Amino acid sequence: MMATLILLRHGESEWNAKNLFTGWVDVALTDKGRAEAVRGGEQLVEAGLLPDVLHTSLQRRAITTAHLALDAADRHWIPVQRSWRLNERHYGALQGKDKKQTLEEYGEEQFMLWRRSFDVPPPPLSDDDPYSQAGDPRYADLGDELPRTECLKDVIARLLPYWESAIVPDLQAGRTVLIAAHGNSLRAIVKHLDQISDEDIAGLNIPTGMPLVYELDENQRPTVAGGRYLDPEAAAAAAAAVANQGK
Amino acid sequence: MMATLILLRHGESEWNAKNLFTGWVDVALTDKGRAEAVRGGEQLVEAGLLPDVLHTSLQRRAITTAHLALDAADRHWIPVQRSWRLNERHYGALQGKDKKQTLEEYGEEQFMLWRRSFDVPPPPLSDDDPYSQAGDPRYADLGDELPRTECLKDVIARLLPYWESAIVPDLQAGRTVLIAAHGNSLRAIVKHLDQISDEDIAGLNIPTGMPLVYELDENQRPTVAGGRYLDPEAAAAAAAAVANQGK
Repeated sequence: MMATLILLRHGESEWNAKNLFTGWVDVALTDKGRAEAVRGGEQLVEAGLLPDVLHTSLQRRAITTAHLALDAADRHWIPVQRSWRLNERHYGALQGKDKKQTLEEYGEEQFMLWRRSFDVPPPPLSDDDPYSQAGDPRYADLGDELPRTECLKDVIARLLPYWESAIVPDLQAGRTVLIAAHGNSLRAIVKHLDQISDEDIAGLNIPTGMPLVYELDENQRPTVAGGRYLDPEAAAAAAAAVANQGK
Repeated sequence: MMATLILLRHGESEWNAKNLFTGWVDVALTDKGRAEAVRGGEQLVEAGLLPDVLHTSLQRRAITTAHLALDAADRHWIPVQRSWRLNERHYGALQGKDKKQTLEEYGEEQFMLWRRSFDVPPPPLSDDDPYSQAGDPRYADLGDELPRTECLKDVIARLLPYWESAIVPDLQAGRTVLIAAHGNSLRAIVKHLDQISDEDIAGLNIPTGMPLVYELDENQRPTVAGGRYLDPEAAAAAAAAVANQGK
């Protein structure tokens, strides 16, 4: 059955605004980010796209974005599933570090390798680091699966089991699915959907708060490669800004 | 297994503030109601009560209350289930009507009969009334089960199947369960838990935004009748105010 998939990256977070690596640190949205989330919901209404079911990460910025967007779209009441597998990439020892300062300290080559290489994770985060999630109750069930750092390849590996077991069944039932998540967990999904190569995915950036819509065929393949943003011009400008972070 | 149940009535809604009968009309919280919800979450933290799972109605004022309270308690990430069976009592033809005006128009006896009698529902709401839920997509699956009016007895009848099938299993698993719902759906639960008679339930009022906590034994019976409010003095004052609405 055909189905519609809506990807929504959370609105600007407090650490987006401060230009810090965030990863699994559970920061809140800024007022700007809250307004982006509401606007995202309004765009769904204007496009006549009404989600039937919501999937989110376990992180506040995605959960609040979904709450605000769905409330604006009068769809606050739809069923929701949450999973750590939709979390942002764990940024390892970079969590809590300033992006610009990291760029200056390590140089552009190392910086871009950590940010955009497919399979080179940053150094792992120590469990006694103040930005560690080792003692966080929401991840208590993960045991050894709890990441201490991740590259995009790692994100794909932990995300795809949830895609297959939880999201594909909703799509197969013909539901309009909203995934409210993060820059890198959404890049992982887009890479999978559009079969983007390990090299080319480095150039793909997803802006905050702007619904990206895919129509999927019965095999969950996009009918139009790359999907479509409901506001394409604003999305292109915002994606360029993401690409230039740290510069 | 012993378990903890936390009942939380939504914070003040726009129609609480206007003193209108609300029922199934999906109004938002006021700023005061939002602050009450946050305060409710803070009380949970102060009491060391951390919900493991959330159950809500399909109504915005309960969903937003839960979101704000859990966010304040750093438990925004717990699993959530929603059901129309936790909705407020359907107030029939009174939905959208001013409480004081209704009291003056129909007299105190009829007014209190509709508000607090166990088994006398108000006249049914017409499907073409602007405050009807007959065309609301969230209730599309209900078919003939969609209420057009309800008394408390009706609320209990539609709520208990959800209590047994969805909430009791969480309690049996020893989870701390948060139910974010409404004055009358929570009165229905309290009546069931404390085995309050059809007559005595009329005198029970539940204030907005104040966690009411029950410790339940392995048969889901309260270890202390009536549970406990985390802020008993404020709860008593607020419950008295609810009882005097319309006067």
